[in-house]
Amino acid sequence: MAQYCFGVDIGGTTVKLGIFHTDGTLLDKWEITTHTENEGKAILPDIAQSVLDKLAERNISKGDVIGVGVGVPAPVTGTGIVKASANIGWGYKDVKGELEALTGIKTSVSNDANVAALGEMWLGGARGCQDLIMVTLGTGVGGGIIADGKIVAGANGASGEIGHINVNMSETNTCGCGGKGCLEQYASATGIARIAKKKLAEGTYSTVLKAETVTAKDVFDAFKVKDEAAIEIVTEAMNYLGYALSNMAFVTDPELIVIGGGVSKAGRVLLECVEQAYKKYAHFTSEKVKFALAELGNDAGICGAAKMVLC
Amino acid sequence: MAQYCFGVDIGGTTVKLGIFHTDGTLLDKWEITTHTENEGKAILPDIAQSVLDKLAERNISKGDVIGVGVGVPAPVTGTGIVKASANIGWGYKDVKGELEALTGIKTSVSNDANVAALGEMWLGGARGCQDLIMVTLGTGVGGGIIADGKIVAGANGASGEIGHINVNMSETNTCGCGGKGCLEQYASATGIARIAKKKLAEGTYSTVLKAETVTAKDVFDAFKVKDEAAIEIVTEAMNYLGYALSNMAFVTDPELIVIGGGVSKAGRVLLECVEQAYKKYAHFTSEKVKFALAELGNDAGICGAAKMVLC
Repeated sequence: MAQYCFGVDIGGTTVKLGIFHTDGTLLDKWEITTHTENEGKAILPDIAQSVLDKLAERNISKGDVIGVGVGVPAPVTGTGIVKASANIGWGYKDVKGELEALTGIKTSVSNDANVAALGEMWLGGARGCQDLIMVTLGTGVGGGIIADGKIVAGANGASGEIGHINVNMSETNTCGCGGKGCLEQYASATGIARIAKKKLAEGTYSTVLKAETVTAKDVFDAFKVKDEAAIEIVTEAMNYLGYALSNMAFVTDPELIVIGGGVSKAGRVLLECVEQAYKKYAHFTSEKVKFALAELGNDAGICGAAKMVLC
Repeated sequence: MAQYCFGVDIGGTTVKLGIFHTDGTLLDKWEITTHTENEGKAILPDIAQSVLDKLAERNISKGDVIGVGVGVPAPVTGTGIVKASANIGWGYKDVKGELEALTGIKTSVSNDANVAALGEMWLGGARGCQDLIMVTLGTGVGGGIIADGKIVAGANGASGEIGHINVNMSETNTCGCGGKGCLEQYASATGIARIAKKKLAEGTYSTVLKAETVTAKDVFDAFKVKDEAAIEIVTEAMNYLGYALSNMAFVTDPELIVIGGGVSKAGRVLLECVEQAYKKYAHFTSEKVKFALAELGNDAGICGAAKMVLC
């Protein structure tokens, strides 16, 4: 009986790969360079070769592999096709078809944010849940939606684009997407620093924060020691995040919301602030939603990708 | 080979039933009274009897029936259990288990709003789509979410509670749920009348609308003849609806949003107004979402319930 699966997480600089037992044991993980030149045409052959090399190295036959799961930094259709991924140079790419032809192993493909959510469900902060929302607070805000244990991919493979949920119809500054009032403008690392700069320029606070250099990490560090300005900044950012998450919970009714990305390194204090804001807007069953921190860090992608082939 | 399925839509006054060919042909539909007295304990036995009677009447054997699908006006767990449904008198009720024991036929159960969405997908305004959001504008605002052709039920069977998405953090009036700023306060029939009353009391318009008696239908009728007040009311209501739908589309990435319920009888003009407001907030793939009117009216429930057993 097949007992192994591969998880592949394609990023702009490196491709992360892992081989797992189907019980979730990570047997080995490694990275290869993402060759984005020439429209990234070497990426899939490089991955295929790396998978086949690993099988040879471990003396595992293809028949013992259930499949190869792949997370891609782009929307992916239900049939494993990417229409374009600027990060890695691709135009139209039949990822599933090409990789299956190269390896002879069944392949599943999905968007990397959704894949990370599945990883947290399988082996991370959302273990035991079947219905969850993952939100990733990094340079931007991304998200993944899991319903009944499976990725909600959407009609265009673009579900979970929650960084562009509008949370403030009155915003006058423009988001990278062209919109005004996107969640990403408030709750990403960049967004938190933006709020901080604005507040520090406007207000007169007793604060350790410096408008010129302030980062999201500075803000949370200052928040932990009850810095006056930091409390205002965190409260505003987390209010928008709690608001957006509450509205999302009315849509998909998750059991758990798991928060990852660089900003989540602030830890439990972040979780408490989000939850407090969330509860202001939640009603009925959405009041019961639990919150957790992501646990897998950079391994979420390979874990979720491997899990995909088991779903 | 089994070739029939039943769709059952339990409402507070009547239970609607239908028998379908698996190809979607509705062979017969009928209603029975919903006996809500005694904690609604006769409801499931009445349904079972009605199903068995129909089989006898048409000389169909149970072996030719794939299943009985049931829509319930309450959240339903993944295992077909209702924890409480005030509308029909139920406390905890194992709907799937009880009905299967009574009929000997496989049964699937889900929330009625999600079931209606599935019905529109199978035989109504969303035919051919696999990923959609249905929004029902009636006395309240309800919703159903379909991903990859299946109902997204959620952890508590409470997905699609979109009437309580917050669309206005500054609202001072309270919604029936206790919140302030719920979509239902603006885009339901009641909500549109509420906006109308408020605007008519505040403004000085040349208008045919009367603050004391105004209904959502009056507003749309007046809108169609370019009534000044009606234009303002519809624009405000539809702006909130478009805003909420755009945010929902970032979450689940639907191909289509289908709009039903009494308010949708306003027809194409409603669709145009929603779409215009939606486009103000949509970006990337969500700009491509199509809009359609629901087509099945009161039959959406039996159609979707029957489709459930085929998924």
